[in-house]
Amino acid sequence: MTPNPARRSERSRIAILAAALELVREVGYGKLTVEAIAARAGVGKQTIYRWWPSKAAVIFDAFLQHNQTPAAGEVVLPDTGDFAADMRLVLHATVAEFNDPTFASAYRALNTDVQDDPELAEQMLARVLKPTLEAVGERFRAAQRAGQIAGGVDLEVAVEALFGPIYYRWLLRTAPLTTGYADAVLEQLLRGWQAYRP
Amino acid sequence: MTPNPARRSERSRIAILAAALELVREVGYGKLTVEAIAARAGVGKQTIYRWWPSKAAVIFDAFLQHNQTPAAGEVVLPDTGDFAADMRLVLHATVAEFNDPTFASAYRALNTDVQDDPELAEQMLARVLKPTLEAVGERFRAAQRAGQIAGGVDLEVAVEALFGPIYYRWLLRTAPLTTGYADAVLEQLLRGWQAYRP
Repeated sequence: MTPNPARRSERSRIAILAAALELVREVGYGKLTVEAIAARAGVGKQTIYRWWPSKAAVIFDAFLQHNQTPAAGEVVLPDTGDFAADMRLVLHATVAEFNDPTFASAYRALNTDVQDDPELAEQMLARVLKPTLEAVGERFRAAQRAGQIAGGVDLEVAVEALFGPIYYRWLLRTAPLTTGYADAVLEQLLRGWQAYRP
Repeated sequence: MTPNPARRSERSRIAILAAALELVREVGYGKLTVEAIAARAGVGKQTIYRWWPSKAAVIFDAFLQHNQTPAAGEVVLPDTGDFAADMRLVLHATVAEFNDPTFASAYRALNTDVQDDPELAEQMLARVLKPTLEAVGERFRAAQRAGQIAGGVDLEVAVEALFGPIYYRWLLRTAPLTTGYADAVLEQLLRGWQAYRP
């Protein structure tokens, strides 16, 4: 049998991404090195640098692959007609992701990097945040058309007002992130969104 | 004149903290080294390590000193009786701080470190976040007693619901952090807080 270089390449790529996710979870992002990823994946360090410029880039791809992060336009949210129930589902899924150790360690690493790296921040925004924010915005617009959110509410602000407190508690570790907390945030906002009068 | 070692020590300490703040702003936290701080401050690297275990610890102290961060119980918020106006003032001050380059670069660095370091996260919570959160909570309780926030509102959730979206936009760089955005978040929440019926 002749070896298949393309398949071997793909095997290495997958091994590297898996090793990166395991290691960031085990040792934390600060102590993560490209050397350690290479050793765990059974490849040379130069193989990694051929494909990625930095450990940040490896983690970014590993994160996208792990979550099978959908592209813009591909995120579809539930629309049962019950806006509150649909948003609770979305929030509960977010809380579950944030409490998943593999997701969380990689996503914390990315949120670390974007503080120093406006270019990565833009990529994160475009490839991770925007697809979801836009789908949520679409669901909000449907709710506004259905009269479940009053006409005067600025929906761009509303979306960040809903997800902001979730990220805040998770990133700043003010308290455990629970579905009960997410429900309470949604409840306070829902009442406000309904209370607007044109 | 005999030299005064205590005074010389204090001068070094101040020079180190100032150098750390300048450098984190100039080169970013990822590229910041203890060597560079020492060189800028005109001290030996070992002087820094005598007082601080890591660059994170230097930045933490520099941040506290720069902001003269008050301890728990020392934060006093305006209470004019007009809850909305008082909170707008607090939010505008927060937005101004977050848009100040020296404050922002150091605070981003700390928010980076806490992702990997639950112990630092606890210290940040205790020394930076809690004093303000508690003072805001106190102001919220006064507003609830005055009937400006309905009785059914969970104030612990409310405080994070208000500050979460500010941190979210700033940390994730979804859009520029402006006072207009802060006012809009407050407005949506205020209507919700008033809409509760016991």
